[in-house]
Amino acid sequence: MKLVEKNSIEFVEVLASKAAVPGGGGAAALVGAIGTALGSMVCNLTIGKKKYAEYDEANKEILERATQLQGEFLNMVDEDAKEFLPLSKAYGLPSSTEEEKKIKAETLENALKNACQVPIKIVRTCYDAIKLHEALVDKGSKLAISDVGVGVQCLRAALISGQLNVTININMIKDEVFIKSVKEETDRLVAEGTKIADEVYKKVEKML
Amino acid sequence: MKLVEKNSIEFVEVLASKAAVPGGGGAAALVGAIGTALGSMVCNLTIGKKKYAEYDEANKEILERATQLQGEFLNMVDEDAKEFLPLSKAYGLPSSTEEEKKIKAETLENALKNACQVPIKIVRTCYDAIKLHEALVDKGSKLAISDVGVGVQCLRAALISGQLNVTININMIKDEVFIKSVKEETDRLVAEGTKIADEVYKKVEKML
Repeated sequence: MKLVEKNSIEFVEVLASKAAVPGGGGAAALVGAIGTALGSMVCNLTIGKKKYAEYDEANKEILERATQLQGEFLNMVDEDAKEFLPLSKAYGLPSSTEEEKKIKAETLENALKNACQVPIKIVRTCYDAIKLHEALVDKGSKLAISDVGVGVQCLRAALISGQLNVTININMIKDEVFIKSVKEETDRLVAEGTKIADEVYKKVEKML
Repeated sequence: MKLVEKNSIEFVEVLASKAAVPGGGGAAALVGAIGTALGSMVCNLTIGKKKYAEYDEANKEILERATQLQGEFLNMVDEDAKEFLPLSKAYGLPSSTEEEKKIKAETLENALKNACQVPIKIVRTCYDAIKLHEALVDKGSKLAISDVGVGVQCLRAALISGQLNVTININMIKDEVFIKSVKEETDRLVAEGTKIADEVYKKVEKML
């Protein structure tokens, strides 16, 4: 059974357990999906209302993109779990001889790089979803604007959580070029993303 | 079917729709449950390990309390939805005559006060769960410490989201004494709670 096919009670229960998955990465992806869905909800409550007719086209575009990102987040809950198995297998490889040590180091390096991919994608997708909320805060129905605030807070948390999961993998990777490129990208997205999220939240607060 | 009995795909889908519930309150409660579960996971991965034996008793207490809070958060997902119906009914009451206006105003005031209760409880429960993470960050296994960081970020988002949902109800309530007491409590818990959450997160960052 896929993790996203569990109900909330079951998901939270297995998350709380010592089971290998889901962990922080899968949790971040689900919180990202929840944050994005709140943006979609505000679009759905705004589109078709006379008062916001001028934004209908823009809001439809936001909704289409948000629906896509929401699906990607949900996929990432299980993708993140899949990358954990090869990593834990690599840790278990024998390392008695020089030859075994070499194979283990190479296998582990590759597994760590693979395990980085979903957290990197979580960071990118959170950034994109925060940008959608930035557009939405000026175009969404005032009656639902608090939900843009909740959405952006969830995405801010998922963004930083994605970065944490990038960091724990990167700290064990040896390839300096890989590390530099991933760190540069994710650090920039987290710095910009949290800044935009905080600005969107402040706008929401003022509207209430 | 209870909202927490939906799987993640279904929950996110109905959240994104224009359906009256779940909204930002229910989303905040679920994100609070996820954040708390990550703390429980770190307890479960630490308890029984020789290296952290001195913290076993303390971690068991944290785990027990976290499990309790986690259940409360999950209950609040559906509790929040239940309070929405009487509120939306109150808005629909007739207000042609003076008598009707009076009844509508009173019904609405009561429904708004009731609708405040779950968001207030979300704020309180997030604060308590953040305090658990504050204790855990010094006692949890270093191998899982990033998950304390993810947990505390989720709880920070749920805390602020709870407050947003308090604010939208309070803004329509007339009872000044009620407003003052609720605002004082939630403002204090949010100010302290976000401060502690940020400190815990910084500690986690330094440990990675």
